[in-house]
Amino acid sequence: MKLVTSGANPEPSKRGRPRSGRVEQAILEATATLLAERGLQALTIEDVASLAKVGKASIYRRWPSKGTLALESLLGEFLLLQPPIDTGGLTSDLNAALSAWVKAVAGTPTGRTLVALIAETQSDPGLAVAWREKFMTAARSQHRLMIERAITRGDIPMNSDGDVLMDMLYGSAYHRLLQGHLPLSKVFVRQVVAIVVAGAKAGGAVPPHALNNAPRRRSSS
Amino acid sequence: MKLVTSGANPEPSKRGRPRSGRVEQAILEATATLLAERGLQALTIEDVASLAKVGKASIYRRWPSKGTLALESLLGEFLLLQPPIDTGGLTSDLNAALSAWVKAVAGTPTGRTLVALIAETQSDPGLAVAWREKFMTAARSQHRLMIERAITRGDIPMNSDGDVLMDMLYGSAYHRLLQGHLPLSKVFVRQVVAIVVAGAKAGGAVPPHALNNAPRRRSSS
Repeated sequence: MKLVTSGANPEPSKRGRPRSGRVEQAILEATATLLAERGLQALTIEDVASLAKVGKASIYRRWPSKGTLALESLLGEFLLLQPPIDTGGLTSDLNAALSAWVKAVAGTPTGRTLVALIAETQSDPGLAVAWREKFMTAARSQHRLMIERAITRGDIPMNSDGDVLMDMLYGSAYHRLLQGHLPLSKVFVRQVVAIVVAGAKAGGAVPPHALNNAPRRRSSS
Repeated sequence: MKLVTSGANPEPSKRGRPRSGRVEQAILEATATLLAERGLQALTIEDVASLAKVGKASIYRRWPSKGTLALESLLGEFLLLQPPIDTGGLTSDLNAALSAWVKAVAGTPTGRTLVALIAETQSDPGLAVAWREKFMTAARSQHRLMIERAITRGDIPMNSDGDVLMDMLYGSAYHRLLQGHLPLSKVFVRQVVAIVVAGAKAGGAVPPHALNNAPRRRSSS
């Protein structure tokens, strides 16, 4: 097993974060390169170690499996491709958000990694937990802002459940990505957004128990 | 390799369909039993052959991989659990259909096989094609009837795209099943159906190009 060497400018006298940070960076960049080249199934920790010029132990110390490593590599890239959106309206917010998602994943290496990771989580409970905690939570907390602003503006009822709206917006798109039965077209994005917005405005996302004892709009409270 | 023996009442003089049908039946029943017991990952063709009392060649002659075998086993069971629905209204149709789906898959062996198969299709292109042709097509043609009847009744605009409505109904449910971030609760089913119906009534499923040159309802044409 090789010793850890962190590339261009090693500073063996400085321990801790800075050097560790460079090692992590090198590992994540190597992972991203190899994922784009050959996909998750063909990825090996050996190849990542070799490309990043680190020992395998340096990788396993930080990530217990190639799945968790790929997840972290995807996470940075994926969230970067989907910056927070605030256009001033719910329809235009959701259109911009779902269009950015489709652009990031349809026919791209990022999309292939995303799909391979979701497949991997089905048989790797540890990865499934990491996936939900790191990926879903990060994406959701960013997406939920669009719903919260729509409630604040009075566009949709105040007890609207942001999770179910996000499940419908992204779930239907993940469905086409994973099942491949129909394309992630611009018309599809427009239809999904139109249905989510009309459904939300009609109060469809308000849980039944909140229907009777709450004002429908913040402005009327 | 063992010779094919088809269980209790072999009739070696009769070739063709009847005997072949019994062999197939035995293989599919053994597959269903083993899938429920141990799941797709741990399933082996050897074990299926042994339980069904047939040779491995009898299986491979009919199914090229354990994925396609599991798909056929799931298909019969799954469609049986989801009989065609016709309650007379779109909301009650979709509620009954999505509730039946949730009952069939949430925390059940069928659900685990479904999820494992979807994962497997991501790295097995042949299985992905079989999945779309056999599973999605069968499910869709059955589900689409609910939308077509709603159009005929004039409940939703006549150019409504049944596929996008099905993607939203089932896609959001598959999303929770696959990602496991939130439960497939009765409230969730009710919200999803309410949003799909309100969105469809508002014309959200009509493709933009059909908006200008078509009557919104059959009754007005």
